[in-house]
Amino acid sequence: MNRKGWAILMRSKMKPTTTTTNQHLFNKLPISNEVGLTKPSSQGNQFSQNPSSSMQNPERELKVVQASMHSSISTSKTDIIDSVLNDFSEGYFSLSIQKRQELLLVLAREYDVNRTQVRELIHQYLGLEPPVGEKGQASGLDESLLSAFYRTERNLRHALQPKYEILFERLNTHPGGLKFLTILRADLLSMLAKENIASLRALDSYLKEKLATWLSPAALELHHITWDDSASLLEKIVAYEAVHPISNLLDLKRRLGVGRRCFGYLHPAIPGEPLIFIEVALLKNVAQTIQEVLWDDPPTPESEASCALFYSISSTQPGLAGINLGKFLIKRVIELVKRDMPHVSTFATLSPIPGYMQWLLSKLASQSKLAESEAGYTPHMSDGRSGSTFRENILHPEEEAALMELSEEFSFGKNGMEVMWNLLTSRNYEWTSSERLLSVVQAPLMRLCARYLLQEKKRGKALDAVANFHLQNGAVCLPSS
Amino acid sequence: MNRKGWAILMRSKMKPTTTTTNQHLFNKLPISNEVGLTKPSSQGNQFSQNPSSSMQNPERELKVVQASMHSSISTSKTDIIDSVLNDFSEGYFSLSIQKRQELLLVLAREYDVNRTQVRELIHQYLGLEPPVGEKGQASGLDESLLSAFYRTERNLRHALQPKYEILFERLNTHPGGLKFLTILRADLLSMLAKENIASLRALDSYLKEKLATWLSPAALELHHITWDDSASLLEKIVAYEAVHPISNLLDLKRRLGVGRRCFGYLHPAIPGEPLIFIEVALLKNVAQTIQEVLWDDPPTPESEASCALFYSISSTQPGLAGINLGKFLIKRVIELVKRDMPHVSTFATLSPIPGYMQWLLSKLASQSKLAESEAGYTPHMSDGRSGSTFRENILHPEEEAALMELSEEFSFGKNGMEVMWNLLTSRNYEWTSSERLLSVVQAPLMRLCARYLLQEKKRGKALDAVANFHLQNGAVCLPSS
Repeated sequence: MNRKGWAILMRSKMKPTTTTTNQHLFNKLPISNEVGLTKPSSQGNQFSQNPSSSMQNPERELKVVQASMHSSISTSKTDIIDSVLNDFSEGYFSLSIQKRQELLLVLAREYDVNRTQVRELIHQYLGLEPPVGEKGQASGLDESLLSAFYRTERNLRHALQPKYEILFERLNTHPGGLKFLTILRADLLSMLAKENIASLRALDSYLKEKLATWLSPAALELHHITWDDSASLLEKIVAYEAVHPISNLLDLKRRLGVGRRCFGYLHPAIPGEPLIFIEVALLKNVAQTIQEVLWDDPPTPESEASCALFYSISSTQPGLAGINLGKFLIKRVIELVKRDMPHVSTFATLSPIPGYMQWLLSKLASQSKLAESEAGYTPHMSDGRSGSTFRENILHPEEEAALMELSEEFSFGKNGMEVMWNLLTSRNYEWTSSERLLSVVQAPLMRLCARYLLQEKKRGKALDAVANFHLQNGAVCLPSS
Repeated sequence: MNRKGWAILMRSKMKPTTTTTNQHLFNKLPISNEVGLTKPSSQGNQFSQNPSSSMQNPERELKVVQASMHSSISTSKTDIIDSVLNDFSEGYFSLSIQKRQELLLVLAREYDVNRTQVRELIHQYLGLEPPVGEKGQASGLDESLLSAFYRTERNLRHALQPKYEILFERLNTHPGGLKFLTILRADLLSMLAKENIASLRALDSYLKEKLATWLSPAALELHHITWDDSASLLEKIVAYEAVHPISNLLDLKRRLGVGRRCFGYLHPAIPGEPLIFIEVALLKNVAQTIQEVLWDDPPTPESEASCALFYSISSTQPGLAGINLGKFLIKRVIELVKRDMPHVSTFATLSPIPGYMQWLLSKLASQSKLAESEAGYTPHMSDGRSGSTFRENILHPEEEAALMELSEEFSFGKNGMEVMWNLLTSRNYEWTSSERLLSVVQAPLMRLCARYLLQEKKRGKALDAVANFHLQNGAVCLPSS
């Protein structure tokens, strides 16, 4: 390939232009994502909802797959277990999503907890004296009676495990099985998003616990992803980048080059595919906008960097939803950067705040309504609150005044909050490109954002899911100003 | 170093000449075995019963260590958890084995299951109708009642987990924590070997289950150990080889060179130290004696090999006793050898049979007594059995005759079995070096050995622990003849 051809390749778009979500990408990108080590040809290219999978493998009859599921759980012949599990996973992948749901319902209901056994053990357990009595004094039992108590307690604990535990355990130690389990869970989640079925919910919750144990951070390897990595791995970075899409090969190379770092967590049983990865920019100062990070050209020399900016984190496995690997990944990457680059002392994140606008608009609308409906409305009392318990002017007096000035020129409103609401929802987001409008709305937008992130709580956690993630990782709030 | 010096070094003994068990080695070899990644200097060189450890770190007061154990379990501050856990593990390692036992008793008893909560949940649980009734028909509950049932069941399952679960979970995700847990379990096992304390037994059994989950084969990496590996890793192979001690560097190099393979399972959280390793010899035919394997010079060219002989397998972690990693390791190595060397078609093990002699001697003694005490004793009936239900002449007629011939010359005895017993227990094992004696005892020894391995059972398993291990891995019996 000549120079020009290479330049064109490096700049050509890597993804469809529509703003797709990750979920859609699964169906569109032909990523090689092999499930099985033993039978890559038949198990490859399997995604949870990939409609082409049933075309590659002819769909099997549900009852045939169900029979192989049964064997996978109940066989005691260790020499055939691998072929039984291969047969089951191939059968599963051949099924349509509807048939998979029927199969998983059978799994959830018929391979559930043995409740007759649980009840027997409960009665046995309640009949035994515990090591420490109700009032906290030692029971004085001898060791053999204590042993019997502990044994019954352990038996009860084991009996409360559903029978499908066996299937999960066997798949976990089977080549390709862990990946299969994450796909199975992704299927479960997409079923539960449509319809809440209690037994499937219980199955999902149990599988989630098992996956969290097996994918414990101790079992994961931190991998520094570079331009020297295999194309099959880099392809996954492009496909799964969920925060700031990678536009072309140049963009990708840039994110792995000087002044940038990319780290992923890999599991030995799912080789060549990071479960989660994070992108870091080494800068002189905390960036104000993501554009500075993605397009600062030339990059800051690494020896001059004093700030590590975590600008993107993406999970590659929809089946691991709710299992917080990011927290551990960030911690490990911070340690690593600290060790390798002692001159970097600021660790920050530049993050979208997905729930802010929605919260702000609803706040502005409801407070503006309350203000209107109330007689004797005082636009701004000293504490920002007035008569009604729920009523509150969320704007400061000078913000209110500046917005009311705009009311005549740009956007109608009976009070500052209504003006702001109208501005923010106006067509084409005019306010984002007008200096005059920005000069007025920036101050209240920033101030209210800090309040949204730090003060608005639900059950003790930040209202915003992304904010909550960062705050749990030890972040303090520094909205760019 | 000149050539002669090098030759001397390669041949010099690597271990004390006494036949030590692995347990003793721990106290003698100065192996670098770092527990912590974060603080290697203070946590290094810690072995469960290493008497020098308390000298390296001044012993802390038990109540101080107990307080840090309490914080490790109860703190909810995620930003200090790492330093709290470091503090606890350092404190633990500073304690003598007696103090450790006191501490573990506190852990077992005071951070146990919350039984008040368990009883409450049991009553709640028994009051709810299960998804499928006693007679197997669906209960017809609506989804919200079913959800409540599943939720209570899950809560009960969680409540039955002891509080020390939190400590184990936290250590598992803490750098060096997994290694610490294996040492803690080794301590528990050595305490339980001296005295069976029910609460410690329950603690051990719980920890064993957790370790088995975290060290699942899916999380382990198969590593081909070669002469190019680090000295610190090779040192561990020498130290932990439990079947056929490695006598010097030449011997080690030989076991990693042409015609030999050594594979280990590594866990990402315990780097540079295989948890278990196996040694394989590639030969033309199944070897008859271990000497052929250890000293066949020059080795068989690999292209001529048709047999892979698994001649040694050693676990490096006493704290992982009872967790069968060997079974998975053997399976993976067989797959690997099959793939890389399709001309290798025989997979065999050359194995000691530790329980055989004891079984044989007791059989010979008791049957010889029964034979004597019975009147009308017929040395050999056609089926080898006579009057008494338990009486049996375990020798064939020609074996009996040959042994009785020896009776006059070498060893006194009223019947073949007594002669054989006397021969086998004679001073200096004379029979092993005399051609005449060997020609007589070899046939019955081989025949009875096959019977011992394959027919003598206890609870459905082979009587011999080593035989049982191999049979579970799919071996069939081929005693060298």
